[in-house]
Amino acid sequence: MSLTFYAAPMSTASITEAVLAELGIDCDRIDLDLSAGDTKKPEYLKINPNGKVPTIVHDGTAIWESSAITMYLGELFGVDAKLYPAPGPQRGEAMKWIAWSNVTLAESAGRLFVSLPPEMQGDPATNATELEKVTSEQKSEIAMERAKADIADCFNILNIGLEGRSFLIGEYSLADTHLQGLVGWIASMNVDLTPFPNVTEWLQRCYQRPAIAKLMAGW
Amino acid sequence: MSLTFYAAPMSTASITEAVLAELGIDCDRIDLDLSAGDTKKPEYLKINPNGKVPTIVHDGTAIWESSAITMYLGELFGVDAKLYPAPGPQRGEAMKWIAWSNVTLAESAGRLFVSLPPEMQGDPATNATELEKVTSEQKSEIAMERAKADIADCFNILNIGLEGRSFLIGEYSLADTHLQGLVGWIASMNVDLTPFPNVTEWLQRCYQRPAIAKLMAGW
Ligand SMILES: N[C@@H](CCC(=O)N[C@@H](CS)C(=O)NCC(=O)O)C(=O)O
Ligand SMILES: N[C@@H](CCC(=O)N[C@@H](CS)C(=O)NCC(=O)O)C(=O)O
Repeated sequence: MSLTFYAAPMSTASITEAVLAELGIDCDRIDLDLSAGDTKKPEYLKINPNGKVPTIVHDGTAIWESSAITMYLGELFGVDAKLYPAPGPQRGEAMKWIAWSNVTLAESAGRLFVSLPPEMQGDPATNATELEKVTSEQKSEIAMERAKADIADCFNILNIGLEGRSFLIGEYSLADTHLQGLVGWIASMNVDLTPFPNVTEWLQRCYQRPAIAKLMAGW
Repeated sequence: MSLTFYAAPMSTASITEAVLAELGIDCDRIDLDLSAGDTKKPEYLKINPNGKVPTIVHDGTAIWESSAITMYLGELFGVDAKLYPAPGPQRGEAMKWIAWSNVTLAESAGRLFVSLPPEMQGDPATNATELEKVTSEQKSEIAMERAKADIADCFNILNIGLEGRSFLIGEYSLADTHLQGLVGWIASMNVDLTPFPNVTEWLQRCYQRPAIAKLMAGW
């Protein structure tokens, strides 16, 4: 089989990087330079017309959207590795958290991100093309407060979901690998996790996974 | 097996309704009254803490997020019905479109929806709790134009994806069932599809599916 992974440091592709690391899958990694506009070049747009990372190309087929990629790699390679449930209700729970992460939690997180002053947005070059179109409304105090309130609602849902469980579906799975990437990014935007003790403790447990700890040590 | 479907008319649950209709699956359908706040009642929040429809409960396990539900029903019931590919790259393509639909296309569509004047938002009661929090910025002309431009970018991606194909992954699949629901809703918000001929023709092909035609006749 052939697997190519289009990535960029400190981006949504870090989620896929963590999933691949957990699965121990060898792939050809191609790093794109977002600040040089690599994702908007015609060759790349043929692979991912959204002009974003991550993308994987598996045996000639391009798959994008990090949530689809996590579930796809999970069902093909995660079941034997005991990182993704076999088809059935428990897998459904993993899928629900992965989809929710990118649809519901990421939507609020994206609004918080664009509302922040540039010095809080990490490497500004990385997000250059994303940030070009931001309006003054999206940068307003009210937009920031609204995004923070919506994130708090999401973290409350996650906190309830983790009640009495070490990980999202009981045992550690790729749903945790996926979600910890997004939650870690949100925490890095000065969002206080202390009101959500189950989330705080879960995140620490995720960070103790050898594959994740190794990746984080390299950043 | 037991399958309960929590729904509401003319909502995101219509996507799940279409998926269940295509699969010909019998389920217990429970209709919630969004304007009466049914989705925010404690009993329902125990099933779906997001307080939204759709939710399915399969053999005791609650699964929410319409994209997760489509993929879940697809992998369990769609393969034999030839509506969802077996695991592998072609299934990956279906997953990519379903994820993209809810993450990327729905994000722009949601912004367009809240920017519209009330008389263009369909049954106002249906969306009462969603619309309570909308700020004047989100209702501005600039927000509407920005959302329309982002939707056009998405429709362009869809148009390219459909080039030379009758359906998203070749043959009709639940990826089409899922996406046609969202695209139809966006078209109902006076978004012009004529610049995207592949999308226009594909939508008509979807509407000719007996299961979908039957549902639409009932609305
Ligand atoms: N919904 C997509 C989002 C991916 C995304 O937003 N990627 C950003 C980096 S975090 C990107 O590639 N931006 C391209 C650019 O700014 O040029 C996913 O989950 O895969
Ligand atoms: N991301 C969710 C969105 C579901 C959603 O937004 N549902 C709306 C109706 S379209 C809802 O239930 N709102 C509850 C309310 O307004 O009380 C999904 O795809 O399932």
